[in-house]
Amino acid sequence: MVLSSGGLDSTTVIAIARSEGFEIYSLSFDYGQRHVYELKAAKRIAERFQVARHLVIAIDLHAIGGSALTDNLDVPKSRNLKAMTSEIPITYVPARNTIFLSYALAWAEVLQSSHIFIGVNAVDFSGYPDCRPEFIAAFEHMANLATKIGVEGKTRVRIRTPLLHLNKAQIIAKGTELGVDYAITHSCYDPSSEGLACGQCDSCLLRQKGFIEAGIPDPTRYIDNTSSG
Amino acid sequence: MVLSSGGLDSTTVIAIARSEGFEIYSLSFDYGQRHVYELKAAKRIAERFQVARHLVIAIDLHAIGGSALTDNLDVPKSRNLKAMTSEIPITYVPARNTIFLSYALAWAEVLQSSHIFIGVNAVDFSGYPDCRPEFIAAFEHMANLATKIGVEGKTRVRIRTPLLHLNKAQIIAKGTELGVDYAITHSCYDPSSEGLACGQCDSCLLRQKGFIEAGIPDPTRYIDNTSSG
Repeated sequence: MVLSSGGLDSTTVIAIARSEGFEIYSLSFDYGQRHVYELKAAKRIAERFQVARHLVIAIDLHAIGGSALTDNLDVPKSRNLKAMTSEIPITYVPARNTIFLSYALAWAEVLQSSHIFIGVNAVDFSGYPDCRPEFIAAFEHMANLATKIGVEGKTRVRIRTPLLHLNKAQIIAKGTELGVDYAITHSCYDPSSEGLACGQCDSCLLRQKGFIEAGIPDPTRYIDNTSSG
Repeated sequence: MVLSSGGLDSTTVIAIARSEGFEIYSLSFDYGQRHVYELKAAKRIAERFQVARHLVIAIDLHAIGGSALTDNLDVPKSRNLKAMTSEIPITYVPARNTIFLSYALAWAEVLQSSHIFIGVNAVDFSGYPDCRPEFIAAFEHMANLATKIGVEGKTRVRIRTPLLHLNKAQIIAKGTELGVDYAITHSCYDPSSEGLACGQCDSCLLRQKGFIEAGIPDPTRYIDNTSSG
């Protein structure tokens, strides 16, 4: 099972999981995002990778509030990398990865799957506490106490984080090597109504920097320049 | 914050949290249950306790499947206590408490609340792995790594389980001492269309046994005997 956001990281994770021989089940969340482009991208990616099943679960983070991604706060633009990575940004969704992984755990238990892949990253982690290795280790420990498969001891649930120690350039290089078409992925926090990337939010800036450092043309379609690659 | 199912246990927990002087935020889940009586009960209880806010979050466990409480499987009836507590029943919802606590954690972070109360019980735990003390401890550890409040180290999130080592009779005695009106709570897994308790599912049997052992009249309205108390 792979958590798929439709973005660059999780798409690379799907390619990595497939390269290990796994049958892929992809899981996406409709969490009251201000845009639906990432869900469209996740569906496109599921089709391209011919996954066994792609499940979209609607979750109501809006009721809880507390983030620029679910509330009507402005997404920060044109920040430098230091500002991005040294503080917890307002785009942080409270306990988001905890909620995502909990659903993944529930589905994994039903499917009797013991490998849950997530594209978290401790290098360009943009200040999110729930992207750190110690969080992932603690979740995995908890997961094995929370579930039938853990209790019965037949299988150990593993939270797989193949991108944890890669920077964006290394992720892009890895995915390109595995044949990922990054043109179908979506990373922008604040796209235009046509789904073009803004080029200025933290997510766009990290993505652009990654392609430059990897020396790979950026296929992303941006608002001001529809073919920057 | 208190996770409220509308049942006997979580209502007792609300009374305990209030007795400690906390302002109460109650959180319930609409998870595609086959009946809505527990949500109605949770709302009644929130009103009775005059909570600061009662939030109902819709969660889509049905998409995931795997339980008699969310799928169309028969709820087991008239089982003896040994069968109930020695195996994981089909009413087990995969990773349910993990998902519930994850949402509670998200809301707690928004509210800057650090006490999350849940009515889990390791005595009459009906075979659920995610009601055990080691699960709760692991979740609490993970929660403090998952969130801003944990990372910034200002507050430590605590998962409070005041019923963990009480049996049903002790829970009922405690709640009665605190003035809980158990007539407004709902425990049955398989109520009639009028919301009367079946008297035969695991939950009803444990509840009945608890009132008998506590020596307190059972105010529950059952299908065959509308006033057994």
